[in-house]
Amino acid sequence: MEKTIAVLPGDGIGPEVTKAAIKVLNSIAMRYGHTFHWKHAEIGGAAVDKYEVPLPQETIDACEASDAILLGAVGGPKWDQNAAHMRPEKGLLNIRKHFDLFANIRPVKAVPALLGSSPLKEEIAKQVDMVIVRELTSGLYFGEPKQRSEDAAVDTLVYTRKEIERIVDTAFEMARNRRGKVTSVDKANVLETSKLWRQVVEERKQEYPDVEVEHMLVDSAAMKLITDPRAFDVIVTENMFGDILSDEASVITGSLGMLPSASVRSDGFGLYEPVHGSAPDIAGQNKANPSAAILSAAMMLKQSFGMHAEAGAIEAAVMSVMDDGYCTGDLSASGNKVVSTDRFVTKVIEEL
Amino acid sequence: MEKTIAVLPGDGIGPEVTKAAIKVLNSIAMRYGHTFHWKHAEIGGAAVDKYEVPLPQETIDACEASDAILLGAVGGPKWDQNAAHMRPEKGLLNIRKHFDLFANIRPVKAVPALLGSSPLKEEIAKQVDMVIVRELTSGLYFGEPKQRSEDAAVDTLVYTRKEIERIVDTAFEMARNRRGKVTSVDKANVLETSKLWRQVVEERKQEYPDVEVEHMLVDSAAMKLITDPRAFDVIVTENMFGDILSDEASVITGSLGMLPSASVRSDGFGLYEPVHGSAPDIAGQNKANPSAAILSAAMMLKQSFGMHAEAGAIEAAVMSVMDDGYCTGDLSASGNKVVSTDRFVTKVIEEL
Ligand SMILES: CC(C)[C@H](C(=O)O)[C@@H](O)C(=O)O
Ligand SMILES: CC(C)[C@H](C(=O)O)[C@@H](O)C(=O)O
Repeated sequence: MEKTIAVLPGDGIGPEVTKAAIKVLNSIAMRYGHTFHWKHAEIGGAAVDKYEVPLPQETIDACEASDAILLGAVGGPKWDQNAAHMRPEKGLLNIRKHFDLFANIRPVKAVPALLGSSPLKEEIAKQVDMVIVRELTSGLYFGEPKQRSEDAAVDTLVYTRKEIERIVDTAFEMARNRRGKVTSVDKANVLETSKLWRQVVEERKQEYPDVEVEHMLVDSAAMKLITDPRAFDVIVTENMFGDILSDEASVITGSLGMLPSASVRSDGFGLYEPVHGSAPDIAGQNKANPSAAILSAAMMLKQSFGMHAEAGAIEAAVMSVMDDGYCTGDLSASGNKVVSTDRFVTKVIEEL
Repeated sequence: MEKTIAVLPGDGIGPEVTKAAIKVLNSIAMRYGHTFHWKHAEIGGAAVDKYEVPLPQETIDACEASDAILLGAVGGPKWDQNAAHMRPEKGLLNIRKHFDLFANIRPVKAVPALLGSSPLKEEIAKQVDMVIVRELTSGLYFGEPKQRSEDAAVDTLVYTRKEIERIVDTAFEMARNRRGKVTSVDKANVLETSKLWRQVVEERKQEYPDVEVEHMLVDSAAMKLITDPRAFDVIVTENMFGDILSDEASVITGSLGMLPSASVRSDGFGLYEPVHGSAPDIAGQNKANPSAAILSAAMMLKQSFGMHAEAGAIEAAVMSVMDDGYCTGDLSASGNKVVSTDRFVTKVIEEL
């Protein structure tokens, strides 16, 4: 196959980890007879520095001319005092909205080679294997009015039935190909939007008789993620709850530096990025863990291009490098040998 | 001193655990020469069954004629299908709003006798000692408009400067009497209400030069509560974030059955209740852990009545019963001997 991929390295360790992912993808292309074209563009702080906006038209154009987007990370102290429209994160919010990337997908899995370093007891962490499906283009993030004066401020949480339906359907489809269970998280005892959410889940589940559905309040979910993470298969929730719960879930396995994410729409187009941030403190030092970016690239192959074997080969290669006893500095507590970003990538490519 | 206390047992194990707290308080009254008058009233499902509303006028009257409120727990499957205004939790929301109980205070502390059963590694759990200060009468819970049709729904997140100031001041005062650190949690990179929140914290901190302040995004806080809970002293946050984070924090020490809470206003009047729920599955079986209710009563003595020695005696007694190797069924994993609710209470009273 021939595919064009927009690469938005962003800030901090973003450039290093996307470079690593590109190396791995080039190696996959060679082995499997694909051709990948790369379109580099700026986002976040890097874009603010060059264009004075976090998502310039040039970047939108590059993405529109591509089949998928690979992103590094955005943000850093350099831009922390910027006005709202000049902040790196705004680039992320804008690109999600512009491309209607309504479904944020985050697999959360315990990495066997890491169990020793997990803050959870081994027997708890062992079988953690869930996917969080977060609505990404509506809710409190985008609802109007959104205003602030010296004396008061307001944000608005709006959901339409259509917005709920499509994200709920995404979760049901996903559960079908996994363990067949959906946990829908809301705050239906307090919020009207959550009552509508719950009602839509109840309606849509008629179409998926093979999937088991449970409703859970967001406060209970925040507890249960810690006390019984194995109870979850697919979690589906609205934007703000998803932001909080997916970050909480990402640390229970102790493998934050390894977690990929996808932000997709129904036609398969999507943006793929590591769950971790831009880690400006270690940027440019050849220390960053490239696993999350590499595994995000694997998600891209699978979800946007339907290249399942290729994706599986990448995932297996990363796990096997870890099993062989190598890691980057963030995971030194695992007892594995700490190697540089470059060396880790070389090992992954050798294992492909 | 002579004090009148409204007792709202509520549902499930609520009646048993409030009864336990009353026994302990009566014993304190005798030893320290106080007189406590008790005014029993209904709330939650119990009130729905008797009055068809979760917070009847009779209950409001009883609370208004009292110096503080002691509550058990509300809710249960029996009322789960009720219309919104007939649900037990609505009683809780109404009483908070009616009495303007804007500050929800939850100490989260590792219990030494329980460290063996914590889902966190011992060395992490050991020094957890924080207080979560949650705004309780505004935000998404109460903002208007709050509407729902078949096609869309809306909730509104509003905060006024005054509402933020008073809760932030509560947190600063609290930090002063503790380790002197406030972590203010918001989502200032997305929400206008959070930007105002952050601005108010920056302004108010001028009045508390002895207190160290940090701002943290809610998604980072959800991670850091797990990876580094010892980093927190006083956390202050808005209503919905507080709901999620305080439940998350309550499980990291593995002592959910022991955590008390206070919901207070500036003049010292307050409502005291266990953090745990109504646990209908074990109700009426003399199995419930009365510690959270007893420790909530201790918080009441301290915060509403200024009885510091008495509160300290209760806290010490509960810890000493645990140290002596006793617990209720919920904490059987601690290796302590499991005893009934009644027997646990008797032991606490013996230790007073
Ligand atoms: C940077 C921020 C706006 C963003 C969000 O809240 O969505 C981030 O936390 C994320 O989860 O991708
Ligand atoms: C019962 C519910 C409305 C309540 C809340 O969300 O405030 C509860 O979860 C709490 O934290 O006291």
